[in-house]
Amino acid sequence: MTNQQDILSSVIQSVKLDDANDTLIILDQTLLPNEKVFLELKEMEDVWDAIYYLRVRGAPAIGIAAGYGVYLGTKQSQAATYDELYADFLKVKEYLASSRPTAVNLFWALDRMDARFKKEAGKSVAEVKAALHEESELIRSEDEQICKNIGEYALSLLKPGMGLLTHCNAGTIATAKYGTALAPMYLGQERGYDFKVFADETRPLLQGARLTAWELKEAGVDVTLICDNMASIVMKEGKIQAVLVGCDRVAENGDTANKIGTSGVAILAKHYGIPFYVCAPLSTVDLNTKTGDDIHIELRPSEEITTKFYAKPQAPEGVQTYNPCFDVTDHNMITAIITENGIAYAPFEESLPKMFKNNK
Amino acid sequence: MTNQQDILSSVIQSVKLDDANDTLIILDQTLLPNEKVFLELKEMEDVWDAIYYLRVRGAPAIGIAAGYGVYLGTKQSQAATYDELYADFLKVKEYLASSRPTAVNLFWALDRMDARFKKEAGKSVAEVKAALHEESELIRSEDEQICKNIGEYALSLLKPGMGLLTHCNAGTIATAKYGTALAPMYLGQERGYDFKVFADETRPLLQGARLTAWELKEAGVDVTLICDNMASIVMKEGKIQAVLVGCDRVAENGDTANKIGTSGVAILAKHYGIPFYVCAPLSTVDLNTKTGDDIHIELRPSEEITTKFYAKPQAPEGVQTYNPCFDVTDHNMITAIITENGIAYAPFEESLPKMFKNNK
Repeated sequence: MTNQQDILSSVIQSVKLDDANDTLIILDQTLLPNEKVFLELKEMEDVWDAIYYLRVRGAPAIGIAAGYGVYLGTKQSQAATYDELYADFLKVKEYLASSRPTAVNLFWALDRMDARFKKEAGKSVAEVKAALHEESELIRSEDEQICKNIGEYALSLLKPGMGLLTHCNAGTIATAKYGTALAPMYLGQERGYDFKVFADETRPLLQGARLTAWELKEAGVDVTLICDNMASIVMKEGKIQAVLVGCDRVAENGDTANKIGTSGVAILAKHYGIPFYVCAPLSTVDLNTKTGDDIHIELRPSEEITTKFYAKPQAPEGVQTYNPCFDVTDHNMITAIITENGIAYAPFEESLPKMFKNNK
Repeated sequence: MTNQQDILSSVIQSVKLDDANDTLIILDQTLLPNEKVFLELKEMEDVWDAIYYLRVRGAPAIGIAAGYGVYLGTKQSQAATYDELYADFLKVKEYLASSRPTAVNLFWALDRMDARFKKEAGKSVAEVKAALHEESELIRSEDEQICKNIGEYALSLLKPGMGLLTHCNAGTIATAKYGTALAPMYLGQERGYDFKVFADETRPLLQGARLTAWELKEAGVDVTLICDNMASIVMKEGKIQAVLVGCDRVAENGDTANKIGTSGVAILAKHYGIPFYVCAPLSTVDLNTKTGDDIHIELRPSEEITTKFYAKPQAPEGVQTYNPCFDVTDHNMITAIITENGIAYAPFEESLPKMFKNNK
C-alpha cells in the first residue's frame, strides 16, 4: 500500500497553496517539456502574471489559481471592517479578471469567491479572510474529487494491460489533480494495471507531445508519443483497447466538442471496434445545447500551422490555411460519457440529465 | 488554348536537361518551401551531390537524375572505342550507385542505361553517347507520360469545383512532371476546373506543408494547408468531394502502402461517403505481393517526431515514440486505383492484372 500511495501522491499538482507560508505553488507550463520549474507566488500580481503569460493553463487550473489569487490579494488588505474589506476585494477581483478575459473558469471562480464573501456578511475581517481561504481551497479540492471520481468510473471500464490512446491534454496539469481522461491512467498506475498509453502529439499546438507525454512520463506511466496520423496504424496493429479523451463541451444529445482531431480518432475507433470514451465533468455538459451543430468552432491563426515552434517556416509564405481549434464528435461514435456522478450511455438525452440528478 | 498551355508549361519540372548546354537543371528541394533555387549541374559529381544531399527527391525524380548523370559522366570520357567507353561507363555507374544505396529507382535507372549501352554494341563512341542521351531523355519522357495518363484518368472521375484532399507529396517535383495524385489538379487547373485542394501537412516530415502546398501554390492552384487531424472536420463540413493519394506499393488485392496516415484518411473518407482514389504507376503495383500483410513497414527515428524542424525540443527528453513511415490502406477503403493504363475497381485481383495487359 505504501508504494501505491507514493505513486498517487507523486502525481503532479500544477496549482496548490503552501498553507504554512501562504504561498501559491504553480508549475510553469510555458517551460514544458524542457524544464520543470515551480514558481512560488505570494502576491496577486504574481498570480495575474502566471495566468496572463499562460504559465498556468487548463480551464480548471486557471479557476483554481484565480480563487487562490483572490485570497492572497484580499488577505493583504488593511481594511478594518467587512465593507472596507469588500471594497478592496472588488479591486482584487477586477484586477484578476483582466488577466485572461476569455477564460470562462476564471470568471466562474471569481464569482464564486464573491458569493462566498457575501455569504459571510457581518463577519469580522479575519473571519472573512479565513472564509476566502477555505473557499479557494474548496474550489481546488472539489475539482480534485471530480477528477478522481471520473478516474474511478473510467477505470471500472478498463482492464490491466490495456493499450490506451488519448488526444490533446486532459491531464493533471490542467486540473487540480489527475485530470479527466488521464485520471484512470494515474489510478491504474497506482493499482498495477500496467497500461500502455499512446499520446497523439495533437497538432498544431502539440499539447499531447509537450504536456500529456511529459506528465505521464513524470509519473512513470508507460507512454509512447505518436503523430496524429499514426492513430489508425496503432489501432490496426492491436495496440489500442480503449480511447479516452476530455472535452470542452457536451451537448444534450451527447455530441462532444473537443480539441481538433478528436472526431477523426472517434471514427477510427469505431471502424476498428475500439471503445471511445469521453471524460466529462458535469460543468462541461450543457443540456441547453441541443446538438453539436449549435457549438461554434473557433478558427485560429495560420502561424500556428506554418511557423510556430519551427526554427524556420515549414510552409510556403502566404499559403492559405484552415485552422479550427475544435471539432465535434458525433454522439454515435461515443461509447460512453464518463462524469463524476457516473457513466452515461446512449441515448444520451436520457442518460445525461440523470447524471445531474445524481448530485448529492 | 494559349492560356491553358501556359498553365501546363509552367508546372515545375524538378529535373530536366538543358540540351543546348548539356546541363542538368535541378530544383534544390532541400531549400523548399523558403527558397526556389534551380541548380545547373554539368559534372556527374554535381549529380552525385544532388542525390546524396536529397536536393532531388521522389523515386521517379531520382531515377531521372541518375539517368542524366550517367549520360553526363560518360559523355566526358576520352575513350576511343566501344569497349574503352564501356569501362568508363561502368565507373560512372558504380560512382552514381553510391549516392543513395537504398533508392530502388536509382538502380533501376542505372541498369536501364547499362542495358541500352549493351544494345549499342559495336557502335561508335559518338553513337553510344548519343544513345545514352536518348535513353536518359526516354526515362524522363516516359515518366511524364505515365503521370499525364494518370492525371487524365483521374480527371475523368472528377468534376469542376470539387474540393480535393491529398496526403503527403505525390506531385510534380517528385516525378518528371505533374506527379501522380497531383496530376489531375494540374490538368484541371489548365481546363478551368477550379478545384479547391486541401493538403494534409503530413507529420512528421511535413511533405504536405513543405512540398505539396508549395508546388500547387506555385502553379496557382487554390490550395489550403491543414494539419493531418483536420481531415475529419473538412470532410464533415462538405469541403471534400474526393481524396487522391499516391502510393509506394500496391499489393495484388489492392491493399496499398503509402505515407503514414493514408489509411486513416481512407477510413474517414469511407465514413463520410467520399471516394478515395489511389494514383499508382504500374511500377508500384506488385502482383507478387498478395496482400498488405506482406508489406514490411519501416520504423523511423524518434527525432523526427520530437525535435526535427523545431527551434527547441517539443517532447520530453527520452520519451518513447512509435514512428512508422508507412501504413497500409485496406483495399475495402479504396474506391479505385488509377494507373497509366486505366482505372481499376474492385475486385482488384481481377482488375489490376488487366492494367498490365493494356500495355501497348
